[in-house]
Amino acid sequence: MTEITIALCQMNVVDNKEKNIEKAIEMINNAIAKNADFIVLPEMFNCPYENEKFIEYCENGKKSETVAKISEMARLNNVYILAGSISEQENSNIYNTSYFFNRNGEMIAKHRKMHLFDIDVKDKIYFKESDTLTAGNEITVAETDFGKIGIGICYDIRFPELARLMVNEGAEILFYPGAFNLTTGPAHWELLFRARALDNQVYCVGVAPALDKEANYNSYGHSIITNPWGEVVVEGDYGEELIIGKIDLDEIKRIREELPLLKNKRNDIYKLDKI
Amino acid sequence: MTEITIALCQMNVVDNKEKNIEKAIEMINNAIAKNADFIVLPEMFNCPYENEKFIEYCENGKKSETVAKISEMARLNNVYILAGSISEQENSNIYNTSYFFNRNGEMIAKHRKMHLFDIDVKDKIYFKESDTLTAGNEITVAETDFGKIGIGICYDIRFPELARLMVNEGAEILFYPGAFNLTTGPAHWELLFRARALDNQVYCVGVAPALDKEANYNSYGHSIITNPWGEVVVEGDYGEELIIGKIDLDEIKRIREELPLLKNKRNDIYKLDKI
Repeated sequence: MTEITIALCQMNVVDNKEKNIEKAIEMINNAIAKNADFIVLPEMFNCPYENEKFIEYCENGKKSETVAKISEMARLNNVYILAGSISEQENSNIYNTSYFFNRNGEMIAKHRKMHLFDIDVKDKIYFKESDTLTAGNEITVAETDFGKIGIGICYDIRFPELARLMVNEGAEILFYPGAFNLTTGPAHWELLFRARALDNQVYCVGVAPALDKEANYNSYGHSIITNPWGEVVVEGDYGEELIIGKIDLDEIKRIREELPLLKNKRNDIYKLDKI
Repeated sequence: MTEITIALCQMNVVDNKEKNIEKAIEMINNAIAKNADFIVLPEMFNCPYENEKFIEYCENGKKSETVAKISEMARLNNVYILAGSISEQENSNIYNTSYFFNRNGEMIAKHRKMHLFDIDVKDKIYFKESDTLTAGNEITVAETDFGKIGIGICYDIRFPELARLMVNEGAEILFYPGAFNLTTGPAHWELLFRARALDNQVYCVGVAPALDKEANYNSYGHSIITNPWGEVVVEGDYGEELIIGKIDLDEIKRIREELPLLKNKRNDIYKLDKI
């Protein structure tokens, strides 16, 4: 058994960066008390999910107060932390960026959301990230003491190509901090996490902000872990909560032997590659 | 509205080819009475799902009695028929092959199962198609009066690459005659049909033999249609039944405008190609 404890910090995000960082630190401390190996914060955990706020809240990653504080928490507590995402400014661009810290507090990976969320479901949900944000261009896989992990952000999960490419590089857990809404959440959130896990025979982890009905954008919550058989290991509800899930990486090997999907892929017929 | 009626013939398959063909024709006649535009038979509809039976029942496609009779049904009734699959012999090889007939009874596409089903779930299900069968090497998309359709067989649905490639070629309905079992069926059948439909914003259709508890291989049944929003349009139970589903191809366009997944794919970052 290679059992790992993952803590999903489904935190309520408010319109106050200091308070959001305080809340993140409080939930990280609670996760540490539960002996978490990986602690995951949600997408845009320090900033309301609105294009105007992305501009107001953005930080230069190298000087970011948020990044410094989360890194410090990883170092002090000797724990991996995936800092969901923040609004990152570099030159004239703003990115939706996830920082991943190792147990020394070193930032060992950084993923910039690669697929921007532009949706217009009639009378239900309109959001156009590309009005404000610039897309990242890198596929992100990081090495940890527990094997390789991949990082995508929210809408990135809708693209099977990205998951497959991370898995081709050896990722065994795919983390997707995300914030689906009250239309796409009930319709697609669990389905996508189950399908990516099943198709790739890996664990998938989604961490969302809690639902705030007063906010402009209503997060679906329901932070989730799915396993390589396509089952839900643990799933939250709408509200603020710390969700703890245990996974066993040995299950990946077992399931890939029983149902050898990755071996049965027809690499002689089709090929998926990074350009 | 471009409404199409699809008939899923979830037939009981017995160890008698003549009787299976008779049953298929009976269900096709029932489907015609329901004004079906596409009639779909299950995987191995004329042959028990066993390696030894694949050898015993195999037919040369060009001289096949089964193919001739189903083609004749299409021509006489002016209807598209996807003849699930049969065991096809060519030279020293045996394939799991699906034949697609247009309204003139012409065979306009033929798909040979491309991913062979080799599974060994401890104490639950063991089957190794590659002991007997040879895999096909072609991605199959056919033109119809209702637009393009793609064809895969059963285990083929587990590979997101194949679905994507068919959709890249313009397929708007993906047909997968299949026979999941009582282990993989409850765990994965509906999930896979929902996920392929959602990711590619197309309709997916799965048609299985009915469950025969006395057979060596126990089909899960549950023939299904899923829509481009990832929902189940219609789904059967275990037993023999004719399942009728109506789909509207205009929904594909609407959903792709609201949630432009195929447009938002990062074709500048990754590329999936036929080799």
